[in-house]
Amino acid sequence: MQLPESDKTLPGMNESGQQSGEKKPDFEALELEFLGSMLPGIVHNLATPLSGVIGATQLLEMRVGEQERLLNELDRGVTTSADALKVQHQKSCSNLDIMSRNARHLTDLLQVIIRRFHRCGQNTPGPVSLFELVSNELQFLDANLTYKHKVRKRFDLAHDSYTVFAVYKHVVAVIDEFVLRSLAAHDFSRGLVEVNVTTNYEAGNGILQLEAKFFETDEEPLETDSIDMFLARLGENGASYETHHEKGNLTITITFPRQAKGT
Amino acid sequence: MQLPESDKTLPGMNESGQQSGEKKPDFEALELEFLGSMLPGIVHNLATPLSGVIGATQLLEMRVGEQERLLNELDRGVTTSADALKVQHQKSCSNLDIMSRNARHLTDLLQVIIRRFHRCGQNTPGPVSLFELVSNELQFLDANLTYKHKVRKRFDLAHDSYTVFAVYKHVVAVIDEFVLRSLAAHDFSRGLVEVNVTTNYEAGNGILQLEAKFFETDEEPLETDSIDMFLARLGENGASYETHHEKGNLTITITFPRQAKGT
Repeated sequence: MQLPESDKTLPGMNESGQQSGEKKPDFEALELEFLGSMLPGIVHNLATPLSGVIGATQLLEMRVGEQERLLNELDRGVTTSADALKVQHQKSCSNLDIMSRNARHLTDLLQVIIRRFHRCGQNTPGPVSLFELVSNELQFLDANLTYKHKVRKRFDLAHDSYTVFAVYKHVVAVIDEFVLRSLAAHDFSRGLVEVNVTTNYEAGNGILQLEAKFFETDEEPLETDSIDMFLARLGENGASYETHHEKGNLTITITFPRQAKGT
Repeated sequence: MQLPESDKTLPGMNESGQQSGEKKPDFEALELEFLGSMLPGIVHNLATPLSGVIGATQLLEMRVGEQERLLNELDRGVTTSADALKVQHQKSCSNLDIMSRNARHLTDLLQVIIRRFHRCGQNTPGPVSLFELVSNELQFLDANLTYKHKVRKRFDLAHDSYTVFAVYKHVVAVIDEFVLRSLAAHDFSRGLVEVNVTTNYEAGNGILQLEAKFFETDEEPLETDSIDMFLARLGENGASYETHHEKGNLTITITFPRQAKGT
């Protein structure tokens, strides 16, 4: 079994700006470009639960003074204050509940993103669980609001412990580019885009199918050159693929070997 | 006065993947690439205050049961519970304080980022306050931990209401690329990098000076080709610039006109 290389390829500030004059596509630059395109959506997505946290915090803070007053009254023997304190307590509990839910949501979002960076640090081929990879990446894409709300999705993932032989980040790049292109089709036609993702195991191979259904227009809204480039990279590690592209539909089927060739 | 165009150029998911075969540098792709390189640092930077929020929330939640018990005791006439409740209240207040501070920090971070996206949506030349632009962008760069902690910075910004004639995002791109290159120099030599940013007004022009001092090595760690490309773009709107590059030092001086040529 090959161990993943260290985080050498975790996108860092020192890796960009090398895109000129190279024959081979600069995948690193493209990956950073993709992340950059995600950033505004991620930031907006973080803003909503954060405003829940802020709101609940402010309500709790507003209640502090009243609670202090009631506690002081108790000291002076005003027994009715106990009931009032209970009411305050109930309100605080429900604020706390909202806060907690939003803070957990924020944490989940950040963790999905951090996990994704970490996984994509794996730069060498090795056993990859298609189920885990696809689930994680779709969660990561969900961190972007456009994808979350504008695309109708349907997933049918074979949930088993089989793995395929591939480079984690190379598979991810195909999914990302596919989603990016589908969203571009959405922006172009203003029509709904439906994305179907299926994984399966057949004849000892792992299969990943990506299908985009989009609004038919006279001009074809969906470019596939960039997807082909990423597919070709998968081919370097033994995957085969088929692209079916017609008006209103793009279907990509990738077949991954279970193991490295010759093992 | 020209009004900024709408958010057309706000980095969106539909704008990437167009980097091949163009003569002119694809500035949009480069901008997204830069944002992508910032993302991991931003996410890690958000994680710290968020864990403060989570921690405080959990402490508050742990206290809920005890407070309920004490309130019930009060009902049954146990007057000593009032004092215990006061202690609980004090503790909750200090948790709330921590939470509030961290939540505000999170909000500030997100707002800096959102404001930056918004400003960089301005795609046409117009009056720009150098002070405001440089301050905002340095705050945005601070959202990335590498820059925040590994670069020694010194700023000397002329704080006045004068504006210069430029495209906001074009000026920002030069600062970003400059900082990116300086960080790359840091990664290369493992030595400290010092960045000095100065703005000034002289003879009716606005002047922005960017200076990087870095560790001298036999191999020059600092590429400037990409910076030149962004500087050339500033030239299109009437700015002139000078680059001074020697071992261990890069100084860029940009002179912006106060107004558009011929006005």
